[in-house]
Amino acid sequence: MIPRYSRPAMTAIWSPESRFRIWFEIEAHATTALAEIGVVPKEAAAKVWEMGRNATFDVARIDAIEAVTKHDVIAFLTHLAEIVGPEARFVHQGMTSSDVLDTCLNVQLVRAADILIADVDALLDALKHRAQEHKMTPTIGRSHGIHAEPVTFGLKLAQAYAEFARNRARLVAAREEIATCAISGAVGTFANIDPRVEEYVAKQMGLTPEPVSTQVIPRDRHAMFFSVLGVVASSLERLAIEIRHLQRTEVLEAEEYFSEGQKGSSAMPHKRNPVLTENITGLARIVRSAVNPAMENVALWHERDISHSSVERMIGPDATVTLDFALARMTGVIEKLLVYPAHMQKNLDRLGGLVHSQRVLLALTQAGVSREDAYRLVQRNAMPVWRGEGDFLTLLKADAEVTQALSPGEIEECFDLGYHFKHVDTIFQRVFGHA
Amino acid sequence: MIPRYSRPAMTAIWSPESRFRIWFEIEAHATTALAEIGVVPKEAAAKVWEMGRNATFDVARIDAIEAVTKHDVIAFLTHLAEIVGPEARFVHQGMTSSDVLDTCLNVQLVRAADILIADVDALLDALKHRAQEHKMTPTIGRSHGIHAEPVTFGLKLAQAYAEFARNRARLVAAREEIATCAISGAVGTFANIDPRVEEYVAKQMGLTPEPVSTQVIPRDRHAMFFSVLGVVASSLERLAIEIRHLQRTEVLEAEEYFSEGQKGSSAMPHKRNPVLTENITGLARIVRSAVNPAMENVALWHERDISHSSVERMIGPDATVTLDFALARMTGVIEKLLVYPAHMQKNLDRLGGLVHSQRVLLALTQAGVSREDAYRLVQRNAMPVWRGEGDFLTLLKADAEVTQALSPGEIEECFDLGYHFKHVDTIFQRVFGHA
Amino acid sequence: MIPRYSRPAMTAIWSPESRFRIWFEIEAHATTALAEIGVVPKEAAAKVWEMGRNATFDVARIDAIEAVTKHDVIAFLTHLAEIVGPEARFVHQGMTSSDVLDTCLNVQLVRAADILIADVDALLDALKHRAQEHKMTPTIGRSHGIHAEPVTFGLKLAQAYAEFARNRARLVAAREEIATCAISGAVGTFANIDPRVEEYVAKQMGLTPEPVSTQVIPRDRHAMFFSVLGVVASSLERLAIEIRHLQRTEVLEAEEYFSEGQKGSSAMPHKRNPVLTENITGLARIVRSAVNPAMENVALWHERDISHSSVERMIGPDATVTLDFALARMTGVIEKLLVYPAHMQKNLDRLGGLVHSQRVLLALTQAGVSREDAYRLVQRNAMPVWRGEGDFLTLLKADAEVTQALSPGEIEECFDLGYHFKHVDTIFQRVFGHA
Amino acid sequence: MIPRYSRPAMTAIWSPESRFRIWFEIEAHATTALAEIGVVPKEAAAKVWEMGRNATFDVARIDAIEAVTKHDVIAFLTHLAEIVGPEARFVHQGMTSSDVLDTCLNVQLVRAADILIADVDALLDALKHRAQEHKMTPTIGRSHGIHAEPVTFGLKLAQAYAEFARNRARLVAAREEIATCAISGAVGTFANIDPRVEEYVAKQMGLTPEPVSTQVIPRDRHAMFFSVLGVVASSLERLAIEIRHLQRTEVLEAEEYFSEGQKGSSAMPHKRNPVLTENITGLARIVRSAVNPAMENVALWHERDISHSSVERMIGPDATVTLDFALARMTGVIEKLLVYPAHMQKNLDRLGGLVHSQRVLLALTQAGVSREDAYRLVQRNAMPVWRGEGDFLTLLKADAEVTQALSPGEIEECFDLGYHFKHVDTIFQRVFGHA
Repeated sequence: MIPRYSRPAMTAIWSPESRFRIWFEIEAHATTALAEIGVVPKEAAAKVWEMGRNATFDVARIDAIEAVTKHDVIAFLTHLAEIVGPEARFVHQGMTSSDVLDTCLNVQLVRAADILIADVDALLDALKHRAQEHKMTPTIGRSHGIHAEPVTFGLKLAQAYAEFARNRARLVAAREEIATCAISGAVGTFANIDPRVEEYVAKQMGLTPEPVSTQVIPRDRHAMFFSVLGVVASSLERLAIEIRHLQRTEVLEAEEYFSEGQKGSSAMPHKRNPVLTENITGLARIVRSAVNPAMENVALWHERDISHSSVERMIGPDATVTLDFALARMTGVIEKLLVYPAHMQKNLDRLGGLVHSQRVLLALTQAGVSREDAYRLVQRNAMPVWRGEGDFLTLLKADAEVTQALSPGEIEECFDLGYHFKHVDTIFQRVFGHA
Repeated sequence: MIPRYSRPAMTAIWSPESRFRIWFEIEAHATTALAEIGVVPKEAAAKVWEMGRNATFDVARIDAIEAVTKHDVIAFLTHLAEIVGPEARFVHQGMTSSDVLDTCLNVQLVRAADILIADVDALLDALKHRAQEHKMTPTIGRSHGIHAEPVTFGLKLAQAYAEFARNRARLVAAREEIATCAISGAVGTFANIDPRVEEYVAKQMGLTPEPVSTQVIPRDRHAMFFSVLGVVASSLERLAIEIRHLQRTEVLEAEEYFSEGQKGSSAMPHKRNPVLTENITGLARIVRSAVNPAMENVALWHERDISHSSVERMIGPDATVTLDFALARMTGVIEKLLVYPAHMQKNLDRLGGLVHSQRVLLALTQAGVSREDAYRLVQRNAMPVWRGEGDFLTLLKADAEVTQALSPGEIEECFDLGYHFKHVDTIFQRVFGHA
Repeated sequence: MIPRYSRPAMTAIWSPESRFRIWFEIEAHATTALAEIGVVPKEAAAKVWEMGRNATFDVARIDAIEAVTKHDVIAFLTHLAEIVGPEARFVHQGMTSSDVLDTCLNVQLVRAADILIADVDALLDALKHRAQEHKMTPTIGRSHGIHAEPVTFGLKLAQAYAEFARNRARLVAAREEIATCAISGAVGTFANIDPRVEEYVAKQMGLTPEPVSTQVIPRDRHAMFFSVLGVVASSLERLAIEIRHLQRTEVLEAEEYFSEGQKGSSAMPHKRNPVLTENITGLARIVRSAVNPAMENVALWHERDISHSSVERMIGPDATVTLDFALARMTGVIEKLLVYPAHMQKNLDRLGGLVHSQRVLLALTQAGVSREDAYRLVQRNAMPVWRGEGDFLTLLKADAEVTQALSPGEIEECFDLGYHFKHVDTIFQRVFGHA
Repeated sequence: MIPRYSRPAMTAIWSPESRFRIWFEIEAHATTALAEIGVVPKEAAAKVWEMGRNATFDVARIDAIEAVTKHDVIAFLTHLAEIVGPEARFVHQGMTSSDVLDTCLNVQLVRAADILIADVDALLDALKHRAQEHKMTPTIGRSHGIHAEPVTFGLKLAQAYAEFARNRARLVAAREEIATCAISGAVGTFANIDPRVEEYVAKQMGLTPEPVSTQVIPRDRHAMFFSVLGVVASSLERLAIEIRHLQRTEVLEAEEYFSEGQKGSSAMPHKRNPVLTENITGLARIVRSAVNPAMENVALWHERDISHSSVERMIGPDATVTLDFALARMTGVIEKLLVYPAHMQKNLDRLGGLVHSQRVLLALTQAGVSREDAYRLVQRNAMPVWRGEGDFLTLLKADAEVTQALSPGEIEECFDLGYHFKHVDTIFQRVFGHA
């Protein structure tokens, strides 16, 4: 997480101020619940809220206390006592640090998930809009980087839409994975704190109680969460690479928007580089790099060790902030993407009709030629075209073995572009729920 | 995937025989669908089924053809033609290799997921059984590897049960992720094949149609699938490390079953090593190592490139076979785990009552001592005990500042083990749905 | 490691037969050393060699014994006793299984490294040969996938040569990392075996003694070894992606050799896909996936645990066999690569002279124009060319502000291709030691 | 990289101020070299140094310019022109941004490597000191977490010393990998800049010229660099886990130093947790997480794409700062480690003499008992001891089959602890060069 690749709303979630505010809310709600069940005086709980609700927690002061105690929650509680006064001794009754830390982390991850889901929604909007716009814009489909058969540019975007719709569902599931609360004490037995406190705090913080915790909330939840971020990042990489390919000099079917004043190269003034999608490609690697440490965090020793903590202090902000930034950047890229249908058509025409080779193959087999012979006939006419020696339609018409099976008209019918797009509506219906 | 860490049912899914059988089914169902909509003769479809249903596909023969054509599906189709006869030319009409390959891979992954889900079910059974057995067996809970407060051995197993119940749900979701079928042609436009063929084959193979494919089924699905396997493996690692810790010489609270004739060490005959859980620890690393390549597979070029193929030929079998083996091994470990309640009690008693320190702290604060003073009082009596110099209860009773706040009886009350277990029923209720 | 991506010499290293042969050699050499220092009878050592030197170790028999003892080295020693007779009791005296297992693994890795180094040598030969052939073949250099300035195709290959020369040096260092031998007993103290045995066996097996082992050879060595394989794989990926880009339909500057009878697509007979380099791209992901488990293997518990073992049984063969295959495949690709200088020239000419923009920029600044103005002048003439509206040279000559600084002749001079290649000799000299 | 886990010297390397200072030096040295060969006026070069040598580069100003130009090097050069005046137009002549960026990154990595090497030196000192101190302190060696045979605590530290000595050598090699300079222009051809400029700048900055660059310095170098950091981190994890194990309540052979005022737990005042080594365990995961993105950075497209840049902006600081912090923390842990020889002895005695089982085995075989019988005899006397039923020595003396082969005195001789340590000197000699 560095400012260059950060947006303020996501960054704010991870600020010390946010963290201490969430800690306060957890502690204060817990005190309220303890008061409800008669463990601490109701006046104490009221006082905690009264003094703390609008308090500013002094980050520097807390850091100074922690420098002595070497324990962050104790440092916070000491500072809270400075704000609340003697009633602060009723705070954190029967709780352990992880009750606060783990519940707080999950609150932060839930909020991060909410932003990421909104990010994906914005990207889905952009993709849908551009997909509809280019629903019938012909372009060449490629496999192995080699021209295959025609598709439409809208179909490419519909594919991305469907992929990010899946990613949205995954993020919703990931959010649910980590939307739990644990206030269960030092080893999760509720020995010193009633389970009703956990239930109350969970409800107030928008979480569900962790069924069984062991001081910590189990880290398989977080491993799953970061894995989903890694998958979303991989999808971003796929879309980024698609655009980078389309912007290649020789292809130039689409281009990132190039703002006024932007310089492509300090040395080569003519250049217009796909720097945004290249950047997203790199950011995807960063987000993915959180997956393995998150998985290594699962196997804590016995009821818990604290090795996960330093990892999460870093990957928590890094992965969510970076993914938020990358998603938003991609949305901008898609919204403003310069699309060049004329270049698409030019590239489509480039292979002298070879994109229709499969259709010819099918026509031949349907006319009774064996599959092997048909393949041979098509390939022998395709190869010269591939080498730039002639036009596929002309060559086929001149091949006696071909014309034995197909009339010139039947051959020509194989070269109809529209033929390829007859099911675009079907696919759009599947993806968007309407054609 | 090596025989040492493989079980036959999972391995069979990945055999060439299984693969060719699935290919046949996809091709034959597609031919039936093509016949239904009038593209190929119904007799041809019938013939394909008639000749192929019980045919044995000759792996060596197919390999030999592929050595020439360098294309595996063409090699299979050529061999199929040898079995079916001239009607074989109606097979694969309008389809592309990936229609077969990708749908087949997903069939294999679905079957693998079914086995893994059954594996987790068996592990859940074992965990539940042993958890009930040791529901109230006292043992020390540890954080940082240091004694904390008492738990029961059943709670440890309940935690593992809850974790694997989550893993079961994740596997079900992962299965759904990859239970799709694509029969959409060279670039996914259905140009040469009707979408009804896809729908028909999907249904017959127990899959759903991929909403939009691009020759290939999008690899974000598979990335998600393998990520889930990585999370399950991480949970296995957690449980394995728990057992390895419990079997340590100095701890010895539980032990892997040691069969007759087994030798722990070629040099040290007395040794009984936790080799099964150590093995599972290593296997977890292997399963996890599939996650990153699976994520790197997502960003295929344009409509597809084939870089994912070699990856999947390896991680497909490796990750599923290894995880299946590790899950089954863990189930055996749990079922036969030797549990030593007497050692647990001995370890519990080891710290001279220090495990009750938090309760003393709470009693002091509830008796009106400030939190800071209470902490100081507890710590100054705890430290000598920690160094082996005395017993916590005795020291507390001899501390004037303590006895000013608490009577001897009140101090003694803090040393009641049962106090810690009063909510075990609550937790069991949450985890198992009954106490 | 699957047969499809395996070559016999590397695979043979990892066969049970090889493993048992190496175990025998280690045990027999150790027995000889023990005899030399008088611990066991010289006749016993002689007998071991006599009976074992040409013996065939029965893999199935050893497996059967292991099924009972659950210990592979004990199983082997039991079988060895069947071959050698009563003198076998002098074998393995004071040794522990890991003395045999770890030393054997390192022998295997050393042999694997030797093959990999030879593989890289073959690739270097191919790269050098093709680099010399195309030393002065002009082609466009690209940054961000966008045309930048001219390079030669030989320079591209020289870069790859330099990269693989570095990889060769890394493999040599990696080989040295794992070329150690440990015969130090159960915890590495030589309590039951004299250090001279280790020295003797090390020398005989072409290794150096591990300075301090702890039953096992420390796994940081292996982590480093597999990391180097990961880097080599990443370089392969780079070269593979370069070729895949060059083979793109719109670029087509080079192409993988396409053998007779090869079919590019079951559906599209015209296709010639870069399947070998796509395959290498995927294999690189597999090799890299060994790095993380190898690093996780380092932190064994205390003097050792056995979690590394299952990992190494898989990544040992997988990573070395796959990298060997990928390197050899790449060598074939480079040797037979179809290079199309005419297409390179056509692509070079494509941007209407824009590749010379930097030189114009420099000429302007050297003629006294400020850098900012020069950039502006070049960019305003470049943009129309970029959009296909005109030729760069013509536009520059028609720009009054440009011609104020540069004469037409001076402008034309900026468009000399040879200008870019004047230091190719220098670079070749640096890379190959001769121009 | 977060302040909590950062140290100032390493952090400073990555500050914008350092970066712009290095950029200035590269540009200014290049201008000097250009002046030397007559491309720009010597006065211009002098002026650049005069105005820039002690200039403060205004980070906010550069950021503001970049916000418009979207190009960091152009922003810097614009600001430099504000400082230097009109002569600034001679700066960056014939260079491209990457000449500055890549050379700067390598300067930063070299400086980071120097700090890391110094860190390892400090750790080696600490390890050596404590190893000498505890050279003959007896402790139990463990395999699989189970007692094996005696070692000394000094041997454990000697092992760590040897491992970090290897890591030092790896860091030196890694430093060499990235100590290169590229000033070769837009595609590495030196078209617009003389190779002598690169040679001059390289020398001044303490680097060597990159033999062949392609606008960028090839990223296999950086992949190797970060891989080495990952290996060093893995070694740190190993040592951290060793200490965490030793501090376990039941083991307690060593303990992290616990400062005055430090609180182990907000809830349990008695606790002294190994939080420093747990923290290092987590930090190791973070450092390792840089390896994969660094490897994915290798395969840049053609002469370069810029996807690596965002990755390096994050992993460059993150991995080096985190590793520096972790190494320094570990040095502190080792220096102040509380070692408890009495507890070590107590643990050693724990298994009733079973640690001597191998020696008994050997004595039996040397007395003519077959290996299989000896194993059986030892195991049948060891098992009761393992279960806490008796003492090994007593049982052996009471076993008629044993005493048939060995006299009571011979049996007793097997229980001499010193026997295990007779080669400690040899090992220390190997590791430290002196015993």
